[in-house]
Amino acid sequence: MVTTESSITLYQRPDCPFCWKVRLVAFETKLTIREIVVQLDKKHPDVVSLNPNATVPVLVDGDLVITESAQIIEYLLDQCPEIQLMPSSPKARAKARQLHHYSDSKLGKVLFPYIKQKRDSPTHEASAEVKESTRLAWFDEQLILSEQLGQSEFFTGHFSVAECALIPRFCLAITHGLAIDESFQNLHDWYARCAARPSFLKALPEQFPGLA
Amino acid sequence: MVTTESSITLYQRPDCPFCWKVRLVAFETKLTIREIVVQLDKKHPDVVSLNPNATVPVLVDGDLVITESAQIIEYLLDQCPEIQLMPSSPKARAKARQLHHYSDSKLGKVLFPYIKQKRDSPTHEASAEVKESTRLAWFDEQLILSEQLGQSEFFTGHFSVAECALIPRFCLAITHGLAIDESFQNLHDWYARCAARPSFLKALPEQFPGLA
Repeated sequence: MVTTESSITLYQRPDCPFCWKVRLVAFETKLTIREIVVQLDKKHPDVVSLNPNATVPVLVDGDLVITESAQIIEYLLDQCPEIQLMPSSPKARAKARQLHHYSDSKLGKVLFPYIKQKRDSPTHEASAEVKESTRLAWFDEQLILSEQLGQSEFFTGHFSVAECALIPRFCLAITHGLAIDESFQNLHDWYARCAARPSFLKALPEQFPGLA
Repeated sequence: MVTTESSITLYQRPDCPFCWKVRLVAFETKLTIREIVVQLDKKHPDVVSLNPNATVPVLVDGDLVITESAQIIEYLLDQCPEIQLMPSSPKARAKARQLHHYSDSKLGKVLFPYIKQKRDSPTHEASAEVKESTRLAWFDEQLILSEQLGQSEFFTGHFSVAECALIPRFCLAITHGLAIDESFQNLHDWYARCAARPSFLKALPEQFPGLA
C-alpha cells in the first residue's frame, strides 16, 4: 500500500485500533495510499498541524483533511463503489454502522483501561482488579456479539466494515491475554474466517506476530 | 409525515437539534414516518426500553432500532437514493459528513450551555458571563463557516445533510438572541435559502413561530 504515486496520505499508528480498522478497509480496496507511521510517545509535527486533537488516524487527499476514523472509512468506500464492504440493503447497512459505532465506543471502553496498562507497562502485570473487571465485562460483550452473529458467517451476511472495526479490538484483547471464551464457538469460527483474509496479515502490527 | 401506514416510527422532541435535523432530512424525502413526540421532563417508557441512554431521537423500523442521529440520517438516505442530500463526489460527501459532525459536536458545545439556560429558565436572563462568552465563541464559529461557504449557495454546492445539521443550531441561536452577525452576508443569504425550502417550515418547532 506504500507508494509515492498516491494522492492519499494516511498518518497512522499500527496498533491503534482506530488506525488499524482504517488500514483493514484500505487493504480490502485497491487504493494506493502513502502511509506515514507515527509513534505513541512522539507527536508528529504534520499531525499536530493537521488535527487540533493531534490524534491519528489523519487522512490527507489534496485539500481534504479527515481526522475522524469513521469518516475516513466512508471516504475510502465512496471511492470504491465496487468493493462491497458496506452491505447493499438499508437495514444491513444500518447494522454495519451500528456495529462499527459499538466497536469504537462501548467495546473500546470495556477493553481500553486494561489494554492501556498492558501496553504502557508490558513487563508488569495489570492490576488484578482491572484484569478481573475487564475479563467479566469482555465476557458480557462476547455474549452480546455471539447472539448477534448467530449462525451467520459474518455479522451482516458478508465481510463488512463491522468486521474491520471489530477485528482490531479482538486482536488487542487476545494478544493481551483475553482470549475468546470457549463458550462462543461461533465467534471463534468468525475470527478464523476474518484472519484468513489477506487484509488481516497486511494490517497486523509487527509487534503482534503471534496472531498471524 | 404523521401516518399509521408507515413501518418507521420516530420518537423525537421537536426542539432537540438532533431530532430536528433528522426531521429536516425526513421532510426532504417522500418517506412516511410515524412520529411520537416526547417531553423534555418526562421520560417516555418506549424510549427508556429502546435506548439504554433514554435519549431521542430513536428510530424503529421492524426489528431495527437506531439511537444515533447520524446513523438514523444515513438510514433514511439509504432508503431514498433518488434524494440528493448527500453529494455525489467522494470529496463533497466527506465535506458534508465533516460539517454534520462539526455541527453535532463543536458548534453544539459552543451554543448549548447558553441555550440550555435560556430554555430551562425562559423568563430569566442567562448569566451575563455565559451570554458574553457564547456570543464571542459563536462569532468565531460564524467566521469559520462564512469562510467555508464562500460564495457558494450551499456548503457542498447544493442543499445537503450539512444544511440539515446546521439549520437547527442556527435557529436555536437566533431564537435565543444570538443573531447571525451582520459581517457575514453570505451566511444571511444561505440561511434565507434554507428557510425558503418547504422542509424548513414543516420541521420548525411550534414554540419558535418567529423564525417562520
